[in-house]
Order: sequence, then C-alpha cells, then structure tokens
Amino acid sequence: MIVETLAVGTELLLGQIANTNAREIATRLAESGLTHLNQAVVGDNATRMEAAIRAAADRCDALIITGGIGPTADDITREAVAAVAGVPLVYDRAYEQALRERWARMRPDLDFPESNLRQAYRPDGAGILANRKGTAPGFHIRVDRCWIFAVPGVPAEMLAMVDEGVLPLLREEEGGGRVVVSRLLRSWGMAEAKVGEELQDLFDASENPSIAFLASAGEIKIRITALARSDEEARALIAPVEAEVRRRIGDRIFGADDDTIERVIRTELESRGWTIGTAESATGGLVGRRLTSLPGASGTFRGSVVAYASDLKASILGVPAETITQHGVVSEETAQAMVQGARSVLGVDVAVAVTGSAGPEPLEQPVGTMIVAVATPHRATVNTLHLPGDREQVRSYAATAALHLVRRAILES
Amino acid sequence: MIVETLAVGTELLLGQIANTNAREIATRLAESGLTHLNQAVVGDNATRMEAAIRAAADRCDALIITGGIGPTADDITREAVAAVAGVPLVYDRAYEQALRERWARMRPDLDFPESNLRQAYRPDGAGILANRKGTAPGFHIRVDRCWIFAVPGVPAEMLAMVDEGVLPLLREEEGGGRVVVSRLLRSWGMAEAKVGEELQDLFDASENPSIAFLASAGEIKIRITALARSDEEARALIAPVEAEVRRRIGDRIFGADDDTIERVIRTELESRGWTIGTAESATGGLVGRRLTSLPGASGTFRGSVVAYASDLKASILGVPAETITQHGVVSEETAQAMVQGARSVLGVDVAVAVTGSAGPEPLEQPVGTMIVAVATPHRATVNTLHLPGDREQVRSYAATAALHLVRRAILES
Repeated sequence: MIVETLAVGTELLLGQIANTNAREIATRLAESGLTHLNQAVVGDNATRMEAAIRAAADRCDALIITGGIGPTADDITREAVAAVAGVPLVYDRAYEQALRERWARMRPDLDFPESNLRQAYRPDGAGILANRKGTAPGFHIRVDRCWIFAVPGVPAEMLAMVDEGVLPLLREEEGGGRVVVSRLLRSWGMAEAKVGEELQDLFDASENPSIAFLASAGEIKIRITALARSDEEARALIAPVEAEVRRRIGDRIFGADDDTIERVIRTELESRGWTIGTAESATGGLVGRRLTSLPGASGTFRGSVVAYASDLKASILGVPAETITQHGVVSEETAQAMVQGARSVLGVDVAVAVTGSAGPEPLEQPVGTMIVAVATPHRATVNTLHLPGDREQVRSYAATAALHLVRRAILES
Repeated sequence: MIVETLAVGTELLLGQIANTNAREIATRLAESGLTHLNQAVVGDNATRMEAAIRAAADRCDALIITGGIGPTADDITREAVAAVAGVPLVYDRAYEQALRERWARMRPDLDFPESNLRQAYRPDGAGILANRKGTAPGFHIRVDRCWIFAVPGVPAEMLAMVDEGVLPLLREEEGGGRVVVSRLLRSWGMAEAKVGEELQDLFDASENPSIAFLASAGEIKIRITALARSDEEARALIAPVEAEVRRRIGDRIFGADDDTIERVIRTELESRGWTIGTAESATGGLVGRRLTSLPGASGTFRGSVVAYASDLKASILGVPAETITQHGVVSEETAQAMVQGARSVLGVDVAVAVTGSAGPEPLEQPVGTMIVAVATPHRATVNTLHLPGDREQVRSYAATAALHLVRRAILES
C-alpha cells in the first residue's frame, strides 16, 4: 500500500516552524510496513492545495494531510478536499453540540467562539476521526482509489489521531491479515556510531525482521520490526534477533517498548519502597519535571530544590560555604554536598543533584561540563560529564544522563 | 520569483533522519524575498525523482534539490536532472584533478577512493557550484524557464553552497531586490478562534501585507508579512496593520518578534532590579525550567522549590498545616501560602506558585484545575484556571499561564 503525506501551512514554507510531524508520521508508516513514497508541504492556498491533493490522489493509495483543519479563516483543508472529491461541505449539528459541551466543560471562563463552528463542516460522505486532544475533528474520504485523511497540525493532536484513527484503518485496508510487530530496545551510554558498529552485520543482514536505529538526547533506540501472518509468527522472528542484540549491547539496554527511563526508575523505586527528589542548579528543574511527567508520580517523587543562586545552595541545601569557596559551584564536592542536603531536606531515600556550566558563557568550567551526584541509602556516586551542543542541548543531555545515573546507582545499591 | 525545494533521500521518507535542511532553506528564501510555494521529499528512485523534478520545473522559476550528489551508488540526482534536461552527463577532468589534489592534501594517509570520481560527472551545460566544505560539487542548469540547483544533503555543505552559490544567483535573477519583512505579534489570554474572529475582516482583506495565525500552548502568534522593494517600504505597509491589530487585541499582546514571555519577564525584572523564584507542585519544576531557559538567567532567577509531597509544602515553604487540612493542597489559600513562603525562603522579590490537579487521576479538584498565585513587593494575585488536554498539556498550559500572570502582576505593581 503506497502512502503519501502532505503538510499544509505557509509558516512551514517560510521556515517559521519545522515540519516535525513529517518525521513522526514517516517513522510510524515504516513501523507499520506501509510504503511512504512522497512527502510534500504546501501553503494555505486553495489552488495549490487542491493541485497537490489531486496529484497525490492520482499516484497513491492513501494521502495523509496534516494541518489546516482548525477554526481560523486560513484553515482551508476541508474546502480543498471537498473540491477535489467533488462533493459539497455538510454541517454536522451533532458535532456542533459536542463542541459546545466540550467548551463549556473545558473553558467555563471563556465565551464559545462561534468561528469554532467551522470545525463542524466536513466533505459530504466523509467519516469523522475523533480528536482526543483538541476540538478540530479529522476526517477521511475516498477519492477514486485513494483514501484521503485530514488530521490536525498540532503535534499532540495529530499523533493521537494517526495512531488511533489513521493507522488502524490503513492496516485494515492493507489487508492480507499481515501484521507488523515492532520491538523497541532502549539503550543509553554508547555513541550511535558505536551501536551501529557493534550491530552492523545484523543491520546488513536484516530483511525481516528489519533493524533501525534512532538517536535522541543521548539515548539510542534499536527498533526490530517483523512482518508476518500472525502476532506469534512475528514475535518468533524477532526473538532471536533481540537476544543477539541484548548479548552485544548488554546492560546498556535499560528498557524495551514503553519502558522510558522515567518509568524504569519509578518501577525500581516502587519495588524497594523508596522515594526520590532532586537538587538542581544548571538544569533549573528539568530533572524534577521529567520525574513528574508520569501519572501517579507522587507515589515516589517528593520534591526538588532548584538552588540556582549559590547562597541558596547553602541556605536551603546546607552546602558548606567553604565547599563552594574552595571548590566552586561547578565541582564534584559541591554536587556531593547538594545531594546529601537534598536527601535530608526533602526527606527522600534517593536524591540526584546536578550542577554545571550550561553556557553560553562558561561558569568556572568549560561549557558542557555537567556534574551529577546520586545518593541512595547504600551508596553515593558522582560523575563529571562533558556534553556537546548549545544551552538547551546541554541541559537536556544532562537531565537524561542524571536519570540514567540514578538507575545505575539504584541497581548497584 | 517562485522557488520550490526538493529533498532527495529514502531515509527521510523512513523517518530515520529529520529534514532539517527544508526549514533552513525556507528561512533563507523568505529572508531573501523569494516566494517558496512547494516543498517535497522523494526517495532515491530515478523514476520518482525525474517525475518530481519535471513537475516542479513546469510550475516554478527555480528548484533547489538537496541530496543525492555524493559518491555512492544511490546518489542519482545528477542522472535524474540530466534526464529531465534531456542532456548527457559529461566528465570533468579538471574536477577529477581537483578532487585528487584535495584528497592528497586532506587524507595523505588514505588511498583515493575511485568511487569519488562519480562526483566529476555533471549534466552537459551545467555550471558548477563550489563545495567549500566537502568533495561533492553542486551544479545548476536551466530547463525551459526553470533554474535547477543541485546541492548536497549534508547540512553544513548545503548551507554554505546555498548562501554563497544559490542565493546570490537567485537574487540576481529576481532583480529589483524585492524584500519580505515579517512582524510577529505574540498574544496570550484569548482562544485562537476568538483572535480569528476579532481580526477576520483584516484577514479577509489581507493581500500585502498578509496576516496569519499560529497557536502554541495557549499563546497565539499573529504574523504580518509584507513584500516590497525596500525594507522601509515593507515596514510602512506593516505599520498601519500592526497598529489596528494592537488596537483590537490590546494588552493581550505581550511581545513582538523575539520577545518570548521568558524574555519579557526578564526585561521587566531587570528594569526594576527584581529577582524571581517559583514554588511548584503539579508543574514539577517546569516553570523554573522555562525561567532558566535563557542565557544569563542567573541575573534574575534565584531558584525554585518543588514541593510535590504536601508535608514539604509545610517543612520547606512554611505553608501552615491547617491551611492544607482546611482548604486542601489544590486551593487558592494553599497557593497563596506557597507563594509567600517562596518569597522568604528563596529571598526573591517576585514569586509564583502553582498547585493543581494535572491528572490523569483528579486530585481534590477536577483534572485541569490549576491554581497560580503571584506575589510582588507591591501586590499578590491568585487565579484558578481550568485547562484542557492530557497531563502533559495541562502542565505545559499551566506553566505558560503562570509566566503570563507573572508579567501581569509585575506590570500592575
């Protein structure tokens, strides 16, 4: 089944925002074993949108359009698809009702903007795709041999709709009862090139199951994808390859599938009845934010102290003034004092402290020098990291590293 | 002058890498006043590449192709462009010589890979674009009315060639030196649909300058873009429209162009010599993270206390136990006590406190109920918000709202 994607938005052609949706959808199509042959971007212009949609519809079996289905006047995907399909727009009173009720529930403080009702129109004959994360409904309609799907441009809304609405329909269309099963192995602590080297021969040999790598903020994901007639058959294809990958990468693999590092840490803490907290400087609260990103975080996470000003490192965390004067704020000694202070002031079993020089101006140490200290009831560790990139990258890599060093310290306790 | 861009590479369609080149080129085209009407991605396939190039050449005045000009067998942009132009490939002995000399200079230790010589071929009649940062030369050739440019996919090589080779040629072609000037107005406190309504007639009338809206995490950006022969002329076109937009949206516009809310807050604090800190519960440190996202944050930001466990609200922030028992943790009383505690324990002039029910399980109040308290030396405010979406959206909207409520409290002080 041949799929194309079309992103709508003049802001994309002006370079004001990046088309991150394109890669997200491309990855999902690949994981689903669907062939993605063309990707395009067109502005908020009826003539050019209709031309792009018509050209794609002549070439492919399914076209996924992102963007242009919101409430404002420049959202014209509905009109363009209707024109290509040669059908009128119809008004959905039931959807208007749902919209008004949702608004009353979510925004009791704001008047309902009548222009929201643009979202109750859809091409005659189109099926609705529910929007779990927003107000703009998606839709799908057949034009000759091509299924056209319209989904929102807002990434969170788009992703939910593609995962829950579009891909299931496409897999069904794909038919043949063929299933695609993917196994995601998550690793940290190796360069992507190194992972590539260690798995090169498997990668070269990989046909079915296929192997792909994806690097993100210091973590490397290894995706093993099998196509088969049944779930069992697909898993049987994946199992030996996964075993070999695990044999080579070893304990640098910290989780599989949905086991994010946040989830893994929570599980390890829960199994020990431990709580956690953070003491942060350069990361400004990012580590705490990540530890609280999961539902039910309060079961293990108690709190954070972000002591950005050095006197707060002393007044709240009890870091001895002489430690800072002797060794500086970006030092292993200060990080160790911060983590011990966090354990007592936050009353936690496990604490992690991060201090460093995130840039752009160096602070005591070269930009990218980040120090992570971890303390558990049984051991204390400290690591000095040298991280690449700009301020935001350094902070994000440091937060990821801090979480992985917490996991290691817990496992070694 | 109408420009299109085409990225070549199957790895893009598989989602293995992001098409960051697309945005870089789009930004440069907009800055150069060139109209960018279509952007496409196609795999390393001769038939589909030729079809994409031919379709673009029929539509536009210039096509910039990124990728597919390296030394490996799947680099077939040279062949595809030659086929569309209806010319043979010619071999450039002078370039072979240059390649061999460059290699001998840069890699004296390694044999010259003969596959590099693929790069000495080019469509007959094409002009060479020098590659200052790599070995693959770019080229340009005219097909009917369309200039076709082929540049590398490697971002650093592509950028240098586009800036130094492609854009100067396009500007020369364009003649008249038309410029595009964009003005971005940033607003908060209105639904996107509401902004659309209030500006509908301006939007309908907008030709030059044109108006567009962009919603992100509760903020609405209004972009006014003008085309003119000079910067001054463009600004003169924008000025009256901006004035009218400001008249209608009023002080819900908090900044223009690069004035993010973090930047605006820092400026307001600096002008008063004030410092800031946060006391957070449901947002888990997200507000502090955003306040520290700017370089030099330490000039105004001192720290945060993330008191996720309620006993920490008492032990670190000094929230009276009876306030929590009487009113609950998700209450305006608790938020007000948290913000006063933050002012003293963090020693800051301005503090912001966030507590709430982020979900998925409700905490005392319905999911999405978030309470923000702000205290300055002169006033204290508290707001209860009802925010839509899932846990991550609620947290992100709440952090954005907290920053905007900080700005308001400072301005009203």
